[in-house]
Amino acid sequence: MKIAKPIQSLIESFSKLPGVGPKSAQRLTYYLLHVPQSQLDDFAESVSRLKKDTVLCSVCKNVSETDPCPICGDTTRDHSTVMVVEQPLDIVAFERSGKFKGVYHVLHGAINPLDNIGPDEIYTEELLNRIRNQESGIRELIISTNPTMEGEATSMYINKKLKELFVANSQKPIVISRLGMGIPTGADLEYADDVTLTQALEGRREL
Amino acid sequence: MKIAKPIQSLIESFSKLPGVGPKSAQRLTYYLLHVPQSQLDDFAESVSRLKKDTVLCSVCKNVSETDPCPICGDTTRDHSTVMVVEQPLDIVAFERSGKFKGVYHVLHGAINPLDNIGPDEIYTEELLNRIRNQESGIRELIISTNPTMEGEATSMYINKKLKELFVANSQKPIVISRLGMGIPTGADLEYADDVTLTQALEGRREL
Repeated sequence: MKIAKPIQSLIESFSKLPGVGPKSAQRLTYYLLHVPQSQLDDFAESVSRLKKDTVLCSVCKNVSETDPCPICGDTTRDHSTVMVVEQPLDIVAFERSGKFKGVYHVLHGAINPLDNIGPDEIYTEELLNRIRNQESGIRELIISTNPTMEGEATSMYINKKLKELFVANSQKPIVISRLGMGIPTGADLEYADDVTLTQALEGRREL
Repeated sequence: MKIAKPIQSLIESFSKLPGVGPKSAQRLTYYLLHVPQSQLDDFAESVSRLKKDTVLCSVCKNVSETDPCPICGDTTRDHSTVMVVEQPLDIVAFERSGKFKGVYHVLHGAINPLDNIGPDEIYTEELLNRIRNQESGIRELIISTNPTMEGEATSMYINKKLKELFVANSQKPIVISRLGMGIPTGADLEYADDVTLTQALEGRREL
């Protein structure tokens, strides 16, 4: 049987989303057939406006309605500490914890030679420029890329480039740190992998 | 941190879908930020057109672009055998198997007193009318509602109403059957529940 075209077209749109297989796409589409048209219109409006109504903050590259974004525009935050993250969602996670009072820099990815993503495909140059500009008053950089191969490579690249920058400009070096790695809260030591255990041992803290 | 309104609004739309929690909704939304605007527009278009461009077939109540739907309009199919299903997706499943050559009737739900869904909230009356109208030439009804409490109740209700109808109209009764129940292909007897085993025993077939 040929499924009606409007239904098939929505199934295909849903299938393109990450983690949504053909069966889930079908289930979601047929569910929406029972939903009032007004709710469908709201949904459609949100999808089409998502990128039209947002911009990248010119300072930190976070997705925002305004430029600068609310975090960069907030004078009560500590603008001398910058946390480097891969994705805007990482900011959401840190803000939820409420423990970080500095500002951010979003790279929008990580260096991944296998996917042809080099330093120029992500916002590394913009980060270096922020630090090169001594008026920005940045004194510490916390590199919070993911603890994956790509995240580590990105972290190493940024660290190396900054060290070169300080020598070349005879600029006073800023503190560069990497987010602490080890056993996550609530985890079971028994099931931790070797790399995590090694990292936890190296990152041990005196009590 | 307040998430930008256009993002928050799409997260909320996604959260309303079945099986999509707040975390998945967030992940899907931030994924869409990296997608070209043209793909977002296609997605939005599909969502808003889903119901506008489809109708319920006046004969079988299936969702379709045309009225009657392609199945009801297909003269090569056996219009004397009608399969009663709860949802349009059930038709998709049967058509995939390719073993059923009759036509369908979609109830769009099942009787569920706990959710205040009685026989009038689903298309039972339309089914009775199809059979009452002797010109439609229906000779067999296969009730394929789900093997749940609600599906069974619906099956019993339809069976009872039809028996009453035949007596009241002194109409020649048609064959009414229920979809066979038992062990699904590939399953393990060891893990089958009691009700399924009982059903399988009652539905045994001579070889």
